[in-house]
Amino acid sequence: MTSTSRPLTAVILAAGLGTRMKSRLPKALHRLANRPMINHLIDTVQQVADDIVVVVGPDMPALEKAAHPHRSVVQTERLGTGHAARTAEPFFGEGDVIILNADNPLISSETLHNLLSARKNGAALAMLGMRPKDPARYGRVVEANGNVQRIVEYKDATDEERGIGLCNAGAFCASAQDLRVWLSQIDNKNAQNEYYLTDVVALAAQSRTVQCVVADEAELAGVNSRAELAQVEHSIQQRLRAAAMANGATLVAPETVFFSADTVIETDVTIEPNVFFGPGVTVRSDSIIRAFSHLENCTIGEAVSIGPYARIRPGTICEKGSHVGNFVELKNVTLGAGAKANHLTYLGDASIGAATNIGAGTITCNYDGVFKHRTTIGANGFIGSNAILVAPVNIGDEALIAAGSVITANVSDGAMAFGRARQTEKTERGRETMTALRKKKEQG
Amino acid sequence: MTSTSRPLTAVILAAGLGTRMKSRLPKALHRLANRPMINHLIDTVQQVADDIVVVVGPDMPALEKAAHPHRSVVQTERLGTGHAARTAEPFFGEGDVIILNADNPLISSETLHNLLSARKNGAALAMLGMRPKDPARYGRVVEANGNVQRIVEYKDATDEERGIGLCNAGAFCASAQDLRVWLSQIDNKNAQNEYYLTDVVALAAQSRTVQCVVADEAELAGVNSRAELAQVEHSIQQRLRAAAMANGATLVAPETVFFSADTVIETDVTIEPNVFFGPGVTVRSDSIIRAFSHLENCTIGEAVSIGPYARIRPGTICEKGSHVGNFVELKNVTLGAGAKANHLTYLGDASIGAATNIGAGTITCNYDGVFKHRTTIGANGFIGSNAILVAPVNIGDEALIAAGSVITANVSDGAMAFGRARQTEKTERGRETMTALRKKKEQG
Amino acid sequence: MTSTSRPLTAVILAAGLGTRMKSRLPKALHRLANRPMINHLIDTVQQVADDIVVVVGPDMPALEKAAHPHRSVVQTERLGTGHAARTAEPFFGEGDVIILNADNPLISSETLHNLLSARKNGAALAMLGMRPKDPARYGRVVEANGNVQRIVEYKDATDEERGIGLCNAGAFCASAQDLRVWLSQIDNKNAQNEYYLTDVVALAAQSRTVQCVVADEAELAGVNSRAELAQVEHSIQQRLRAAAMANGATLVAPETVFFSADTVIETDVTIEPNVFFGPGVTVRSDSIIRAFSHLENCTIGEAVSIGPYARIRPGTICEKGSHVGNFVELKNVTLGAGAKANHLTYLGDASIGAATNIGAGTITCNYDGVFKHRTTIGANGFIGSNAILVAPVNIGDEALIAAGSVITANVSDGAMAFGRARQTEKTERGRETMTALRKKKEQG
Repeated sequence: MTSTSRPLTAVILAAGLGTRMKSRLPKALHRLANRPMINHLIDTVQQVADDIVVVVGPDMPALEKAAHPHRSVVQTERLGTGHAARTAEPFFGEGDVIILNADNPLISSETLHNLLSARKNGAALAMLGMRPKDPARYGRVVEANGNVQRIVEYKDATDEERGIGLCNAGAFCASAQDLRVWLSQIDNKNAQNEYYLTDVVALAAQSRTVQCVVADEAELAGVNSRAELAQVEHSIQQRLRAAAMANGATLVAPETVFFSADTVIETDVTIEPNVFFGPGVTVRSDSIIRAFSHLENCTIGEAVSIGPYARIRPGTICEKGSHVGNFVELKNVTLGAGAKANHLTYLGDASIGAATNIGAGTITCNYDGVFKHRTTIGANGFIGSNAILVAPVNIGDEALIAAGSVITANVSDGAMAFGRARQTEKTERGRETMTALRKKKEQG
Repeated sequence: MTSTSRPLTAVILAAGLGTRMKSRLPKALHRLANRPMINHLIDTVQQVADDIVVVVGPDMPALEKAAHPHRSVVQTERLGTGHAARTAEPFFGEGDVIILNADNPLISSETLHNLLSARKNGAALAMLGMRPKDPARYGRVVEANGNVQRIVEYKDATDEERGIGLCNAGAFCASAQDLRVWLSQIDNKNAQNEYYLTDVVALAAQSRTVQCVVADEAELAGVNSRAELAQVEHSIQQRLRAAAMANGATLVAPETVFFSADTVIETDVTIEPNVFFGPGVTVRSDSIIRAFSHLENCTIGEAVSIGPYARIRPGTICEKGSHVGNFVELKNVTLGAGAKANHLTYLGDASIGAATNIGAGTITCNYDGVFKHRTTIGANGFIGSNAILVAPVNIGDEALIAAGSVITANVSDGAMAFGRARQTEKTERGRETMTALRKKKEQG
Repeated sequence: MTSTSRPLTAVILAAGLGTRMKSRLPKALHRLANRPMINHLIDTVQQVADDIVVVVGPDMPALEKAAHPHRSVVQTERLGTGHAARTAEPFFGEGDVIILNADNPLISSETLHNLLSARKNGAALAMLGMRPKDPARYGRVVEANGNVQRIVEYKDATDEERGIGLCNAGAFCASAQDLRVWLSQIDNKNAQNEYYLTDVVALAAQSRTVQCVVADEAELAGVNSRAELAQVEHSIQQRLRAAAMANGATLVAPETVFFSADTVIETDVTIEPNVFFGPGVTVRSDSIIRAFSHLENCTIGEAVSIGPYARIRPGTICEKGSHVGNFVELKNVTLGAGAKANHLTYLGDASIGAATNIGAGTITCNYDGVFKHRTTIGANGFIGSNAILVAPVNIGDEALIAAGSVITANVSDGAMAFGRARQTEKTERGRETMTALRKKKEQG
């Protein structure tokens, strides 16, 4: 929030489904860096606006929820962007209003500041423009004698107008009072019978100053298709990768590492190729995240080794110096300092004491088909390979579980527990069995 | 097949090994998007030609098989492209003939139509040309007074000729009758003592009209090395990714998703980074394929969740709302609606009823060293973690298998089956054992 | 080593920490293609120099070790590059000296030869320059009348000097005698109070010939940040990928395959997307490395199939025709010809005879918490699924282990071994148990 003299209300137009997305999901809910698109824009807008109103379409409760705690208003009929903006009129307040599109998630706070500065420096209407390399499908900003006159949609533009390089970027700022007047004057006498928000430019330009602030095309990339969604995702990933490296992490192949918007990577962390960070991950200094690892909502302590092929699921904390190896899944687990789970293991709803070794193939049976139960393992223990720990169960400090045991009852500190059958052998039976099978096959 | 007035025979030259490939495999059999290169071209050519003849080298039965049901003829001696084309003469028919190279898999049917149009509009010989950014190694198309005169191979070209930007793209169309005459006239009096197909251009130009149809370089990229193979693969993948997104799928990182030519992805499917689609995969609407998954010859129903790290092998059907989790392999499995196999599991040759839960570490023993056997599990069942199901075996509806059990006999509906040892405990034995081991280590 | 008339000593300046790296690790120890940066440069320099001296900072024992067997000298105070070069003066010898920066790992031996040629052809001081696309931060090479006069650091340069395109690439060659004189003359009267090595250029130019050899910017990319480290890594990977393809390997998606500097890939090997080669890997002809595989210090024989999702760890040899499948980890294992370990398996410190089949879920218990032990399995054997082999243990030829057995004692040739409990069943108990649990849940 800024402490400007006039309060600023931001109106975000998010009612569109985006037909080119070919999706039942509202466009603004499609995800970028593991967050809905709308939340990227809201985060930026919060830095400059005192109040935010999101215009949604009918039957978009998930979008209203994503916008929360900001207010949503429903545009019940799809009558154009001008109509959408009018839907938010009751919440314009008495200061300035900035109108933005939800499908511009990359816009920066610097650009918003530039737009607001133009308004403060005297423009009755400030708008964002850009000069894209390929301007083809954008509306053009028509100027005369150095003054903005109007915006012409591409499909309505003459050949001469299509030659204009300055394009409309879809963001506008004016006083609430002026906007109310202009929005009331726009009509739907056009090919699509829609109320165009862009018509406010010509209305304002009749008697007032309109200023077009030019911003970088890359920031204003709109998301109208899945391909454009992927391009914007790529831009965001590039930013996140650069930030992680600038902060002192080694990314062996940055182009193969996928971050979430909230991933925290500390100094001297090494990230090998092909690592996926879902939401809510923190990795502390000197840890290594090896190739093909997948992490979500977890905290990786200092000097921890994760992977390759480790899947760390929500609620997991790997404490200092612990190791998680290949084909290991941890869900809602606290892995103590120096503890190891290196091979083919599933630990769920468990806490493992410091320096305990979890053998290959260990599985916690945390689910009985209806309820989830916890497994607690003490410090300095040794869980033999392929042990099955049927929760709820408690295994003491320095306990030893024999390989291949099914453990259904608690094990005391320092005890050794068995739960497996004795070995027996039948001489020559192996050879006979295989010979018989092969003979059967030969005989068809 | 077209319904043109004259029948069209396509001759595909595929006899080359491609020395720069450094491979024992015929060049035309190297794979693109999980199909042999030759089949990409055959698919396109089938759209315009009435008959296809593939010229192969000696000892290339796998290539003849790939070309099937189209006819193959064997070029027994390697005497050049002109000789290769003559090998197919008996099958030229009475209409027109189009000659193509097997290592141009990206050529489009539009380009072939353009070539045929030039022929229909009066050219005795129509050929494909291109204007590559870097024309260095291609043969040049020499024109005089706006007419094509001849093709000069790069190594035979003068400096002036090397300055020509129009290059030979290696595809020709003429009447069968004319081609027979011209092919009979070319000789091998050149540096390599080979019969060059390209010499038909000069022969035709002596008294007839030759027209060069210029096509996009990207379509005509030849495959002469593994690096070029990788580039063409990349082009095909880019097309497949764009098509999936245009069709309403979200690809978080399209550049990390690998499709086969026949992959089917429906609307509102989300594909996370690093997913590999082998041949024969269909994914229905609203499903999610999570990171690091690998699928081949399988059908993923609606609203299914696959991965991360799921391997779905041939013959598998995952029905509506089912879940396959991490480090899980399914081979020839039907996973019923709403059923779950979420952790470290191998299911092979099995059918799982609706809503049944497969515990972590479950393994079907489908192979006895000689034969494969089936496992059948009913609906609403619960297979405890690390259960071993020794096939052939049948487990009824609503049955419950205790964790860690080895199941060798059928289990009735609603029953609970055990196959595991009882737990025993030796007080202090764990601590004593570890202490003794550590002592032994200290003593060296 | 060259057989030039004059001996050549190379001095590599490696004392920097690289503040922009934000790392506690000396910059020259950051890794590229799984080797410390300094070793890439040393390998190249060894091709031209008779002796190598590495100037390190204080407390960098790991760097001295990496430089071994070459001599290291410690620059105890950080007084600039000129001071660093003087630290190595006692080892300049009597011939020529070439001074290089450790953070230029991509420099080629051809470029070094060009530098030495300039020196041999009469230049008292030969230096490397480059003409980067964006020269902004580099020192500029000031010439007058076609002769090099001096190097001006960017921050000390006038606007006119900043307009110069020729930049200092940081490598110099002169006679040991001249260098000693010039190094003794440079002072630290500048903004940073440092002795600049670049000042030798102006000193030399006063009375002698200085020649600037221009090399390709790509070779001279310095590593000053993690982002630049990633860019240089990318360049090295591109080289390694191109070399593997030129040598006759198919890389379906080269951009997703990561090699180490010493990876050996033979002809007709296919590498699917997303494969990671750690150090010390050799893959013989006709093998396939499938997607998502991870290999380190191992030898993959001919016609072997690895992956997908196979992790092959140090000390492993996969003999001809063997198969390693998904979610399988091999560590220090010899897998015999034609043997198979296809699903969810951990084999550590083991040898497996030819044609033996290892069932899904098999685990060798090679670690007792203190010592590692070996497992030996004979030829033509069959290890049933989920077998636990508690090492040390020996299983004979043609032996058969029943699925789900815990094996703690040796098994004879041809025998069949069991170590599992019998199955029992309780009628209706499964249904009752689940019903009771569901009822409990409903009642909260």
